[in-house]
Amino acid sequence: MVSKLQAIAVCLAAASSLVSGQTFRRLGTCPTLGCILPPDQQDFLPGQLFDIRFEVHAPKNGSEAFNNGVPDEKFTATIVKEEKGHGKGPRAKSLTEFFGLKQEPKLEKWTFSWFEDLFAKDAKTPSVVNVASKVYRSVALYEPGTYTVVLDYYGGKTTVATWVVRPLAEKKKAKNVIFFIGDGMTTNMITAARLLAHKTINGKYQSLLQLDKFPVLGHQMSHSIDTFITDSANSASALYSGHKSTVNAMGVYADSSPDAFDDPKVETIVELLSRIWGSAWGAVSTAFLADATPIALTAHTRSRGHYGPLIDQVLNGVTANYSSWTGHDGPDVFFGGGAENFLPGSGSYLGKDYYTEFAKKGYSVSLNKTALLAAPKTEKALGVFCKSNLPVWLERNIFPENLDKLSNDPAGGKGAAKDLPGLKEMTLKAIDILHTRSKKGAGFFLMSEAASIDKMMHVLDYDRALGDLLELDDTIRATVEKLTELGILDDTLIIVSADHGHGFDVFGSADTKYLASQDDDRSKRDAIGVYENSGLSQYTIANPAISYNTGPNFPLNWDPRYVLAAGLGANPDRREAYGVDKSGPRTPAAPLANGSSSDYYANAKDKPNGFLVNGTLPTDQAQGVHSLTDVPVYAMGPCQETFGGTYNNIDVFYKIATCLGLGHGKHVTQGKKGGK
Amino acid sequence: MVSKLQAIAVCLAAASSLVSGQTFRRLGTCPTLGCILPPDQQDFLPGQLFDIRFEVHAPKNGSEAFNNGVPDEKFTATIVKEEKGHGKGPRAKSLTEFFGLKQEPKLEKWTFSWFEDLFAKDAKTPSVVNVASKVYRSVALYEPGTYTVVLDYYGGKTTVATWVVRPLAEKKKAKNVIFFIGDGMTTNMITAARLLAHKTINGKYQSLLQLDKFPVLGHQMSHSIDTFITDSANSASALYSGHKSTVNAMGVYADSSPDAFDDPKVETIVELLSRIWGSAWGAVSTAFLADATPIALTAHTRSRGHYGPLIDQVLNGVTANYSSWTGHDGPDVFFGGGAENFLPGSGSYLGKDYYTEFAKKGYSVSLNKTALLAAPKTEKALGVFCKSNLPVWLERNIFPENLDKLSNDPAGGKGAAKDLPGLKEMTLKAIDILHTRSKKGAGFFLMSEAASIDKMMHVLDYDRALGDLLELDDTIRATVEKLTELGILDDTLIIVSADHGHGFDVFGSADTKYLASQDDDRSKRDAIGVYENSGLSQYTIANPAISYNTGPNFPLNWDPRYVLAAGLGANPDRREAYGVDKSGPRTPAAPLANGSSSDYYANAKDKPNGFLVNGTLPTDQAQGVHSLTDVPVYAMGPCQETFGGTYNNIDVFYKIATCLGLGHGKHVTQGKKGGK
Repeated sequence: MVSKLQAIAVCLAAASSLVSGQTFRRLGTCPTLGCILPPDQQDFLPGQLFDIRFEVHAPKNGSEAFNNGVPDEKFTATIVKEEKGHGKGPRAKSLTEFFGLKQEPKLEKWTFSWFEDLFAKDAKTPSVVNVASKVYRSVALYEPGTYTVVLDYYGGKTTVATWVVRPLAEKKKAKNVIFFIGDGMTTNMITAARLLAHKTINGKYQSLLQLDKFPVLGHQMSHSIDTFITDSANSASALYSGHKSTVNAMGVYADSSPDAFDDPKVETIVELLSRIWGSAWGAVSTAFLADATPIALTAHTRSRGHYGPLIDQVLNGVTANYSSWTGHDGPDVFFGGGAENFLPGSGSYLGKDYYTEFAKKGYSVSLNKTALLAAPKTEKALGVFCKSNLPVWLERNIFPENLDKLSNDPAGGKGAAKDLPGLKEMTLKAIDILHTRSKKGAGFFLMSEAASIDKMMHVLDYDRALGDLLELDDTIRATVEKLTELGILDDTLIIVSADHGHGFDVFGSADTKYLASQDDDRSKRDAIGVYENSGLSQYTIANPAISYNTGPNFPLNWDPRYVLAAGLGANPDRREAYGVDKSGPRTPAAPLANGSSSDYYANAKDKPNGFLVNGTLPTDQAQGVHSLTDVPVYAMGPCQETFGGTYNNIDVFYKIATCLGLGHGKHVTQGKKGGK
Repeated sequence: MVSKLQAIAVCLAAASSLVSGQTFRRLGTCPTLGCILPPDQQDFLPGQLFDIRFEVHAPKNGSEAFNNGVPDEKFTATIVKEEKGHGKGPRAKSLTEFFGLKQEPKLEKWTFSWFEDLFAKDAKTPSVVNVASKVYRSVALYEPGTYTVVLDYYGGKTTVATWVVRPLAEKKKAKNVIFFIGDGMTTNMITAARLLAHKTINGKYQSLLQLDKFPVLGHQMSHSIDTFITDSANSASALYSGHKSTVNAMGVYADSSPDAFDDPKVETIVELLSRIWGSAWGAVSTAFLADATPIALTAHTRSRGHYGPLIDQVLNGVTANYSSWTGHDGPDVFFGGGAENFLPGSGSYLGKDYYTEFAKKGYSVSLNKTALLAAPKTEKALGVFCKSNLPVWLERNIFPENLDKLSNDPAGGKGAAKDLPGLKEMTLKAIDILHTRSKKGAGFFLMSEAASIDKMMHVLDYDRALGDLLELDDTIRATVEKLTELGILDDTLIIVSADHGHGFDVFGSADTKYLASQDDDRSKRDAIGVYENSGLSQYTIANPAISYNTGPNFPLNWDPRYVLAAGLGANPDRREAYGVDKSGPRTPAAPLANGSSSDYYANAKDKPNGFLVNGTLPTDQAQGVHSLTDVPVYAMGPCQETFGGTYNNIDVFYKIATCLGLGHGKHVTQGKKGGK
């Protein structure tokens, strides 16, 4: 396994930017030449397993050139717990002594390069760095308090990291946790979705979102450990592990080594739950299952793109490489898209058939909604319903003719995936199985993701993004009803949040008839009504010619004359005409016919009636990008009161872990396959 | 007074759009030809005074043409309280009988016109409507429950309005309320302001905003009664009165009459507080004082632009026109800009000197910071520190040389206003005066507005908007300290919210050096770093060459090489180069040299080094516009627990009014000038 992964990783190391400047950094968490990973200012749950890596950097050239590019191989490190008011504190110990390790790890060495800024990139003058490193695997800190780790290198330089171990939390207060993630979902989008699906009379909504009924609201900060804009990998990882990371990393602190799978790991919520309580757990997503949000529950890699190996990790855990690690016996439920990483071939790990691999470990395998609904509640369940992401709610419910155009058969045929479940069917079935399979007292944990809020915002397809947000809200409503039926509503903490945002907002209405009637770009913009001319939502007005039957929580008309005018602050070049695209999701930008494939212009086939707007993003970006905004957290159930106010995304993990009694003062292995 | 106001109003009626289409509506709250104001679905505080207007419309032409344009003058109306489970309910009574009025109001008649859509506007074919109307002044509903109002017209047509009177709330739970409003402030902007002023190390903030420390968080919906995008007038009015209104209206439901001051009124929070408890109250703003957010506390008009008369209303109440109304004796504190509406001349009501008018009623009058700080705590205080809006925090603190360019002397001279206070100095002085002047048990109410968050977002000047947001946060921090010093922190409910948003977000960093070095629009965009290239905030890194001394809650460097890249979804044409403008606030769009004054292009003088981005708004818009997003509500103090979750903006009023014991089952006039 190592050799193959290393091969992949070498390629990626060239493509991915390691991060001490701004646009680019040598290593984002290491502004000095001595690196401690986990770095300064990190938090830990008591007893949470993690790895520690030290790196000493010797830049050969560039503004940081040092010691002729020869890294100090004789570096040393110590750790000590701070003791207040006890006179003389304890002595700082080497890591080997402190953690009682049998032997000192071997020294590792490698070289990497980076650009100091965009001018250096244009000039093709990379800075090259030689590295000496050691890694300590699978350790834990059990006593709450503050720890100081010191790295000594180059005969007198020191790097210091201060770590905080959070309070003990050994009592389980919630039997179950259901964590809904609207990928990329912001307050702005929730407001817009409410306007689409729920009618107002004279300023008062006649019905509301399920989200609007949650008693407790908080905001969480989504930024990465080393950049203020995150991607979905490291933000999901922060929510699941209490440790932020770098863009594209999950379940690890990103190091500078070429191998994407040797980075220092941290134990995740489901690994903790499996080890400590033996709880059942599952993940449901409308994305492909190897995508960041579902896979970050079990993934330990710096590079999210290793889809095949990550599907192996979710089933078999981190067993095959490097060191012992906490075990888990695979999820009880795993539903979503991404057949290409299960079908034998180039997309799967070692070319194996993962339908078979899952079946061998006792999973029922469902490839369509009918099979899903019939799957036994007592068995572990895999459900893979298409290649790539699930088609969005708008295709599945309003424009099903578009489904036939796809070649996404989960069984590997050339045709389209038929008989697709939605987020609601997957989530309700997951609850049935998890509730049935959860051992007395151990309960379950379910993550359910509405992935295409993000994916459709990326392509500026506001209708499809909001359709999937409304599907999420409808799923939450159905979940509350289901938990009530099962008699477990009061035992279940329901959290709804997001991993990051997009800078979306609605700013008025557009008269699509008037816009289409105008001949030039500037006149078309007169179709936009702002303030007193914005009017009310026409999506909630019944049109006798239209009957979608998608329920009371969705629009009555997706294609009214007056539509929402909305947009983002960060865009590629594109045309805008607003209103729903009936032929499928947008592709707003494309290369010119004979142009570079990484130089994007407004796509001539997208919104041909619209007006042209040049973008604000680099022209190698074909899509919109993530944004900075804090995202909302909705909480209901045991421990709900701890989720009010404003906090970091890692605190979502500590709040959930505290509610679930996962912070222990000694190594606990009550789970069926606990133990390292 | 009536004649002059009517003259103004006639002009406005032509300019303002009355609102049953979408871009334009006949009357937004009245889709049928019979109108009840307040309309269906409105809420009331028990005992809250309000007016009721009925209108019967007879369109002469257009798609709604009816009865040859002759309105029914014999319309009748009844009201009845719904009684459940009591068998036969009470009989519906005429309004005159129900409210015990001495006489039936006179019939009024007028004519107005509107356009059915943009095509009609282009063709210049207005629809003309004749109206018959009656208005019932200064009534109240004292019993909580549901009321039904029925309008019968045209011999068989009926319009029904259902009203809800909220529960009684006769006990005062908070002595004082301080309501901070960040005009236009969203969660996205708060997140960006935190990033500017507070430093992170490896993903953990080393200091936080004061807002981040509030224990309770909610979201409120800002939409208008008849459009989904609001302006600051009717959203402020909703927050202050529990009644939404139409864009540009405050303290009234907008009717279709030509007079902007005869619309049916609703009693506001400070009118209630003055009447019921005789509490002291004040308003502080960085806007001109006749601007929507401060003036909506006492204003009753459909047209926010009547600045002079509205300054008279704040001092003298609604006494001179139409009918008796609840009295108030003017604010105890009134600090802000807008000298042009106080100085005798065309900007003041009847050309009078309002410095003198305020002084005659016992106010100290301060025209600069020195005078403000020296003003007696025991007297009512007026402070007007400049013409127009206060220069923003960035000019007052970082670029004071720009202040000299202004001609804004509050005394009416030609020079610049000197010795300006900021929001913090005004707010702390206001608290001193209000605390000193509040009668035992009656406490005080203060509204403090950071106005230029909105004003600078309108001109896409993100640095200046966020500077004023940080000034607001610094003011809230100082307020908590001041209340602690005075020993009244635990008696005081502090609410921080906004009236609406702008679709702003940060999407990355920009390398200003690289951007300036590139020659064409597309290459300049390569300076934008997204995701792993966004880096960290360089605003928090000390530059030895710079020392602003603006305190720990502000950036150390406003002009780093790497700046935030941010933007809005709704823009006029403009250039973008990011980074602070040192010469003063931006003017992003301007008419062409010999072009129409209402056709805006990117301003050649704004960001000349930047890249061109064409807009998404109608080309008659020179600025960005308000957006849809729900805005945050932060609460701390007595009743804080009632502000969690998601609710309508009118609920902010009902929550505050309930906490202040303003919902009474009989007419209460404990205040010094209570009574109608």
